[in-house]
Amino acid sequence: KAKVNSTGLSLFVDISTPQRNWKGIAISLLVIVAVCSLITMSVVVLTPADHPASVKSPLTVDDLYSSEFTVHDPEVTWISDSEVVYRNRDNHVVKFDFTRNETQVLLSNTTFVAFKVAKYSLSADLQYALFAYDVKQVYRYSYQASYIVYNIYTREVWELNPPEVSNAVLQHAAWGKQGQQLIYIFENNIYYQSDVRSNSLRITSSGMAGVIFNGLADWLYEEEILRSHLAHWWSPDGEKLAFLTINDTLVPNMALAQFTGGTYPRGLQYPYPMAGQTNPAVKLSVVNLFGVTHSVELHPPYQLSLRDFYITMVKWISNTHLAVRWLTRAQNASVLTVCDAAVGVCLAWHEDSSDSWISRQNQEPLFDKDTTRFFLAVPLRQGGQGDFHHITMFTKKDEIEHITSGAWEVTQIVSYDENKQVIYFLSTEVSAQQRHLYSVSTLGAFPRQCLTCGLREACTFFEANISPDAEHKFSFIVHLFSFFLICFFYAHLPSAYFILENNHPLWSMLSTKRMVQSRIHTVHHSNYELPLKLILPLDFSESFLYGLLLIVGSSPGDQAVTEEFRLNWDWVLVGSEQVIVARLDGRGSAFQGQRFSFLSRYLVKLPYIDPTRVGIFGEDYGGYLALMLIKSTEGMIRCAAAQAPVVDWTMYASAFSERYFGMPSTEENRYQMSKVLPDMKGLQGGTLFLAHGTADANVHFQHSAELIKHLIRVGANYTMQIYPDEGHFLSRRSQIQLRHSLIGYFRGCLLDASSLLDRDVEDE
Amino acid sequence: KAKVNSTGLSLFVDISTPQRNWKGIAISLLVIVAVCSLITMSVVVLTPADHPASVKSPLTVDDLYSSEFTVHDPEVTWISDSEVVYRNRDNHVVKFDFTRNETQVLLSNTTFVAFKVAKYSLSADLQYALFAYDVKQVYRYSYQASYIVYNIYTREVWELNPPEVSNAVLQHAAWGKQGQQLIYIFENNIYYQSDVRSNSLRITSSGMAGVIFNGLADWLYEEEILRSHLAHWWSPDGEKLAFLTINDTLVPNMALAQFTGGTYPRGLQYPYPMAGQTNPAVKLSVVNLFGVTHSVELHPPYQLSLRDFYITMVKWISNTHLAVRWLTRAQNASVLTVCDAAVGVCLAWHEDSSDSWISRQNQEPLFDKDTTRFFLAVPLRQGGQGDFHHITMFTKKDEIEHITSGAWEVTQIVSYDENKQVIYFLSTEVSAQQRHLYSVSTLGAFPRQCLTCGLREACTFFEANISPDAEHKFSFIVHLFSFFLICFFYAHLPSAYFILENNHPLWSMLSTKRMVQSRIHTVHHSNYELPLKLILPLDFSESFLYGLLLIVGSSPGDQAVTEEFRLNWDWVLVGSEQVIVARLDGRGSAFQGQRFSFLSRYLVKLPYIDPTRVGIFGEDYGGYLALMLIKSTEGMIRCAAAQAPVVDWTMYASAFSERYFGMPSTEENRYQMSKVLPDMKGLQGGTLFLAHGTADANVHFQHSAELIKHLIRVGANYTMQIYPDEGHFLSRRSQIQLRHSLIGYFRGCLLDASSLLDRDVEDE
Repeated sequence: KAKVNSTGLSLFVDISTPQRNWKGIAISLLVIVAVCSLITMSVVVLTPADHPASVKSPLTVDDLYSSEFTVHDPEVTWISDSEVVYRNRDNHVVKFDFTRNETQVLLSNTTFVAFKVAKYSLSADLQYALFAYDVKQVYRYSYQASYIVYNIYTREVWELNPPEVSNAVLQHAAWGKQGQQLIYIFENNIYYQSDVRSNSLRITSSGMAGVIFNGLADWLYEEEILRSHLAHWWSPDGEKLAFLTINDTLVPNMALAQFTGGTYPRGLQYPYPMAGQTNPAVKLSVVNLFGVTHSVELHPPYQLSLRDFYITMVKWISNTHLAVRWLTRAQNASVLTVCDAAVGVCLAWHEDSSDSWISRQNQEPLFDKDTTRFFLAVPLRQGGQGDFHHITMFTKKDEIEHITSGAWEVTQIVSYDENKQVIYFLSTEVSAQQRHLYSVSTLGAFPRQCLTCGLREACTFFEANISPDAEHKFSFIVHLFSFFLICFFYAHLPSAYFILENNHPLWSMLSTKRMVQSRIHTVHHSNYELPLKLILPLDFSESFLYGLLLIVGSSPGDQAVTEEFRLNWDWVLVGSEQVIVARLDGRGSAFQGQRFSFLSRYLVKLPYIDPTRVGIFGEDYGGYLALMLIKSTEGMIRCAAAQAPVVDWTMYASAFSERYFGMPSTEENRYQMSKVLPDMKGLQGGTLFLAHGTADANVHFQHSAELIKHLIRVGANYTMQIYPDEGHFLSRRSQIQLRHSLIGYFRGCLLDASSLLDRDVEDE
Repeated sequence: KAKVNSTGLSLFVDISTPQRNWKGIAISLLVIVAVCSLITMSVVVLTPADHPASVKSPLTVDDLYSSEFTVHDPEVTWISDSEVVYRNRDNHVVKFDFTRNETQVLLSNTTFVAFKVAKYSLSADLQYALFAYDVKQVYRYSYQASYIVYNIYTREVWELNPPEVSNAVLQHAAWGKQGQQLIYIFENNIYYQSDVRSNSLRITSSGMAGVIFNGLADWLYEEEILRSHLAHWWSPDGEKLAFLTINDTLVPNMALAQFTGGTYPRGLQYPYPMAGQTNPAVKLSVVNLFGVTHSVELHPPYQLSLRDFYITMVKWISNTHLAVRWLTRAQNASVLTVCDAAVGVCLAWHEDSSDSWISRQNQEPLFDKDTTRFFLAVPLRQGGQGDFHHITMFTKKDEIEHITSGAWEVTQIVSYDENKQVIYFLSTEVSAQQRHLYSVSTLGAFPRQCLTCGLREACTFFEANISPDAEHKFSFIVHLFSFFLICFFYAHLPSAYFILENNHPLWSMLSTKRMVQSRIHTVHHSNYELPLKLILPLDFSESFLYGLLLIVGSSPGDQAVTEEFRLNWDWVLVGSEQVIVARLDGRGSAFQGQRFSFLSRYLVKLPYIDPTRVGIFGEDYGGYLALMLIKSTEGMIRCAAAQAPVVDWTMYASAFSERYFGMPSTEENRYQMSKVLPDMKGLQGGTLFLAHGTADANVHFQHSAELIKHLIRVGANYTMQIYPDEGHFLSRRSQIQLRHSLIGYFRGCLLDASSLLDRDVEDE
């Protein structure tokens, strides 16, 4: 049976046909890992030969946001083992059979324009489409929209509305697993239709706006636990639906100010548990959709029955059983259970605990068919080099076997071929900055093979998307993370692949621009390899002196230093000024920024870096680290910019803060210690640059407000860009404004007249 | 009987005795009014001879806020015709009998320290003091505080609390007219005590926090109508109290965001009628405090009984009658009535109407003893020079006689001596920038005499405060507006005066500073004389080129160009940089800024002004004018700073906006026309500087928010200073921060390297 996902739609697409020929637009990314603090570099120069450097123009902020520079994501989904549906560069949604090399247009681009479609999805039988319009983003993933159902063949349309409601704004609507099944969520209740024309059945009735959520995540579950706004899961046969009921009755509400959009604008309230506050209560149920609908609650394992817990993962492993991960509020112990959907009993299969916190809480286990064993990537100590995630086989009797090992990470287990006893996975074995697809046998000495290494010179960062019937025929869609190129191939025949999208127009545009060089450094610090990415001017010379801008990743688990291709504002800065940008991972810095501070000091000592011209930029957690660095390195930083920085972890989300700091009641001191209210005396230039949306639901504006109050108290200077009534994710226009401001700020600070004079003197 | 007011208290006072000798610290302000657009100047140089210029240091922002530079206001109040009470520079509250030259300490400075007193007042019999502590400012005038009653002689103290309430925070507390009478206001209800030890009597019961106000103004009445937070008035004998009941039930609430001060900070709501919205309903009552308390409502005159109106002035003219001014909502018609407190009937004595709006709505009429006639300053056309306010005598039969006339203003009628038939008043007769005290006879050809002209060379800006028994003995306290000097004298013997405070320490400090020059220009434009004040560097030379900073007054009725002495941040800028500051009146600019724009263009053409380096700064209404000027003068302004600017008058207070624009329903176009959302293309430098408190209850943060949204929309740059949870009146620390930022901003803009180079070339 086919599986179709509802997918986002990019509206900035060039009208030109996909081209298979992309020679001359190569991007080469080679990395040599350094030994003993010695640094070797690989240079990426984006200068195709067809344009002489003299006629090239510098990259601008407006370029970054222009339609020519937008990456086209074809949003490929499998519908059978030989067919995919994707959106081509003409904006037609097409079905492509790669065994026959046949293409069929399912939805034409004119349909999208006619109905102002922002998002679309196709029914399981490919007869109907759901079109979302008037889409309004809520948090990171969630959005509200109105929907119409569209008959692909008759072109008939009608609005999707709950019974006795018209012009409904829905929180979610999507097709089911079979035929024309669909569900939607309205006012926090789930509605089900067995086909497009049947009556809606309200499956839940407890839903209450902003209080009780059915099948949808509240803010905390969306942002910190599930990392999705969806909290429901179809059984493979489409006969059952598992869903969470998240009860925020006792969770304190946070208020978001509103300043514009009316004479008397009103603020918004929503449940947001800060560190130590009451968390939402969560319940997992399964509802039978066929026949008489009835719900069964799945009860937590006895270990957690009387404690605060999170449900971090739900996965159907058959048509009758689900795997569910339950995590304690302290996040240092979790239980993986298998639950019987018919009776609601969950049995613990695997327990995990940690001195700090359990990582990869959302990871889905891969079960074999008769659910006797499963595979998970779990941390494995590799000598003095620390823990790395590796594929481990668990059986019902808690027998454990490690399938892989080494000082590299299995980043994702993609698929398990039970017949061949082969697991497919993505890993960092070649380099921490790359992602390649591997296969490993679960037999013998677990021989493994890289399937994508050397597949294409430029492709070093892969994602994999498995075809639905992977057990029988192994096919993958593989694409470079930032949509550089999408190809797919047979796992058993890796050299045979098709290119669905190569984003040729983007690469043509880039070839007219004076680009920059990007190098990845690895610095050794005690037993750890600390990677960093340098972005250098094209005419970089080690005998020259450059200003340095440090950019920190935005979450503690974030890996900023990879070979993925992503155009960003710092390229504009480097492209037009004698500045070097260093991108550093936020990960592993343990909130004290020691590694980060080590790397910064290391960089400042490089012979071509002017130690008097060092700036730093960070966003949310990165903003926290930036402020930390000012505090800890007296006089090293000349200018600092923080976007939506966290300054006090007691005011941040419970699930995040408690993971790293514990409960504030018992760990008050750790929270106090981590408060960043620097006096800015460490800042040479004297002025901190702050940027924040006033309606940020993630890092509340109160963080910047507390910081500013402190700055005023100590008499420090700051300059600010606020984004009235905007959230954590700024509007396109505000992003452009902010990028311009940041570049202006760092240009003024990293290139001031006196240091230019100094350099002239040294040059003579 | 003595009259004592509760008064504010300045805590930044130097410990030194007042000195009578102030020679060597003279400030000379002479003005020659220009004829036919020719400008002549008078130069003020603050350079006492005792310090050579070389050892003087420049004035800094920190100086402005240091205790040494703070003006000491002795807050003098009359208690009899020969006695005043004031606070001396040692912070003792003393009684001074100037007929006997005797001083008696009533409250010592240690008492203030011991009880953390922020404000004090003395009972009518001088036996008790009320001490306010924990004072929290609410709006411009209003504050909340806790109070203690202090026996001056026994030193006994106790808290002032309503019955059955402890640790009460009161909205107001003050002594009455007799003995130890006192009233206080708690939760919008008035309480009365006949003496300090008697039980409290609750006079009103309708009070409701944020909804119904008794004896106190709501935001609108405080800021725009009464210009005071007090809305109650004692009869002269202390037996009756008139008070307003302001009902905001139907007034829409504005929300003020709150960002700091707690994990889950909550916003504030308060009634704020914007242009065209429902206004508060107002009722005037008189309550009898002696014997059985009963209230009588004073009814509006029939002309207003069915219309929206304001009560703008209430004054007891005898122990049984009050003068009350009623103003239509459109503010183009008013009725002055005399009301009988016993029966509640108000009879119209004088009606006024205007094509635009009625000015001086708060002006109190001066009645004679038997209430047969009264005096008011009313606009009088003076040929083609426009309207000027002059003293006019009205009788019951509506006979009118103009006592003064000429192209100058009577700014205040101070007192009427019925026996001698003489009126004392302040006027601008010498110069629009000066205030002198005059007497005028109401007989014959109304001969008048200046009483303060030439009294002291440096004193050109006087205020007058009449002694309580002025009918019998005419004594005044006269002081220079900014507390430069406080002296008092007998009206009939002007040469005999005492100096209570000369702020000698301040002048000593100033003499160690390199100061600036201040000149007043008068520019002729059609028939009007437009004054402006130039602040010039000490070494100013007309053969040099200077940057220009324009500073606009903050309200349409504001006169910024006067000879009053006021230290400000622009002195710091001028003192340290080659910049000239021009202060311009906001008045008369009719919201289109034509006059203002004329003056700006005029200034830019001056030979010593560099037309490429012109900046502008304005606050609230001045911020509006600054934005207007950018819009109207393409390319003239290089940099602009606006503090809490109004950008849309539909979002500002009804009583203010409607006065100038009318009701939005009928005058929508005028409101639209006056919206200032400039695209900043007129701004050469490209960056607008904004400053705003996020909890500004007067000009809401929404104005800046709308402006910023617009700037982001049009892709214009701005830089911002926000003051989290601060109101329209910034805290001391925030003021310092803002002054520093403003000086840095204008320094960077008005003195940039390229224009310095340009100047060098021209100089050669």
